[in-house]
Amino acid sequence: MAKRTLFIVSDRTGITAETLAHTLLTQFDLPVEAKRVFPFCDSEEKLQAVVEAIAAVTTQDAQPPVVFSSLVDPAHRALLAQANAPVLDFFEVFIPRLQEVLQQDAQQKAGLSHGMGNTSAYEQRIEAVNFALGTDDGLRLNAFSQADVILVGVSRSGKTPICLYLAMHYGILAANYPLTEEDLHTDALPQPLQRVKDKLFGLTIDLPRLQAIRQQRRPGSDYASAQRCRRELSAAEQMFEVNGLPSINATAMSIEEIAAAIMHRQGLQRRL
Amino acid sequence: MAKRTLFIVSDRTGITAETLAHTLLTQFDLPVEAKRVFPFCDSEEKLQAVVEAIAAVTTQDAQPPVVFSSLVDPAHRALLAQANAPVLDFFEVFIPRLQEVLQQDAQQKAGLSHGMGNTSAYEQRIEAVNFALGTDDGLRLNAFSQADVILVGVSRSGKTPICLYLAMHYGILAANYPLTEEDLHTDALPQPLQRVKDKLFGLTIDLPRLQAIRQQRRPGSDYASAQRCRRELSAAEQMFEVNGLPSINATAMSIEEIAAAIMHRQGLQRRL
Repeated sequence: MAKRTLFIVSDRTGITAETLAHTLLTQFDLPVEAKRVFPFCDSEEKLQAVVEAIAAVTTQDAQPPVVFSSLVDPAHRALLAQANAPVLDFFEVFIPRLQEVLQQDAQQKAGLSHGMGNTSAYEQRIEAVNFALGTDDGLRLNAFSQADVILVGVSRSGKTPICLYLAMHYGILAANYPLTEEDLHTDALPQPLQRVKDKLFGLTIDLPRLQAIRQQRRPGSDYASAQRCRRELSAAEQMFEVNGLPSINATAMSIEEIAAAIMHRQGLQRRL
Repeated sequence: MAKRTLFIVSDRTGITAETLAHTLLTQFDLPVEAKRVFPFCDSEEKLQAVVEAIAAVTTQDAQPPVVFSSLVDPAHRALLAQANAPVLDFFEVFIPRLQEVLQQDAQQKAGLSHGMGNTSAYEQRIEAVNFALGTDDGLRLNAFSQADVILVGVSRSGKTPICLYLAMHYGILAANYPLTEEDLHTDALPQPLQRVKDKLFGLTIDLPRLQAIRQQRRPGSDYASAQRCRRELSAAEQMFEVNGLPSINATAMSIEEIAAAIMHRQGLQRRL
């Protein structure tokens, strides 16, 4: 199958158009030659430049690129439509439908989507990121009482990126507690976790993957040995089970999926 | 205007449907009563439960909720369509259009979108997050040579969350360098930055906002005083100008917008 170039064209960040394009394309078998993102296309000149870039790619690839766009201004959409390529625009399709549903005209102003919105949401987000950073690796145990959720798992099971994602995307206060060898000598929950049991969520990971990650970090160490990784994983999983903690195996899941699953299973509401 | 409840229904994380709903609704004036997210709706039973929840909300609000969905399976979409509410399904609209464009049938399998994709992209992302964490606040100056971009700004100008977003969303290696009072006694770039000038990107912020953030952190301190904040901001902005650094004022922008603007202006390509 011939490769196609993708164009993402947006009057703002391009995040929405890119997310939607990505989701749609997972349903097709399309070898992508290249992806070109054109954010902040909010003038006729900029759209004219995109139309010219489309023409150049069409010549080079011997076929037109597939264009995904989110352009609020109908005049800008009309300009892009003049390009000799298929254009899938998100506003064009859904705005009329929503106008009908809501019995209201759309505002058709660019830049409302990933803008500041309100300052308190921005501050909540920054606070959540700082919280995730400040409590990373169990640094501030007394902050556990403030946390919405506390991820528990062995070293390198992926706690930190997931806490940061929960903070950034949902504004959730996510702390984490790394299970050390000492913690794992018994099935009992480590002392600092006992008062906050309802907030705990266990993370686990397959042995080969944990070992590979640890090998990369400290090659040839006991820390990265199969024996120690296996012992820690098995003790952690047993601790989750004995104490009735919800848990997830993160091996085959993306950060988005793990975060969404934690939100869902803990019944958390986004704070943004 | 009457308030409406929003439903976000997805067979996976709900991120795509929620992004779309959020972007579309910024174009309308719709007071939202509540938002209810139903991720992982991948069975008839789960969709039946959603249909019942829609009926309950319709009774309670005295009008139906607005439903945004991303359901790959046509049978599941048909089930949701039986609810007595307007449903905007993302796949229903775009899959047929894309089938036509690509001359290919869609796979119609759930869960391909925010799944693992390939392991190397996952690892790049984790590496980028660890890089942002490891170089935070200029901790590892020798890592600057590896960085794709280095954010420069006074304390609390928002460098860290933006570095983390660049890492999480684009897989970009983003470091940051906090300008201290010592650095700001001269217009010259701090010594560790001189060899990496092409990677530098300045961040600035309005005085009232910086002061408010610092006040929250250290109330009544010299660090949070108007005088010192003004002096630091003005010296930093002058340093950016004298050295020809690109820069951005982050005050009225969201993290997404700042990150997209940095990618665009530095000509960076996403690594995911």
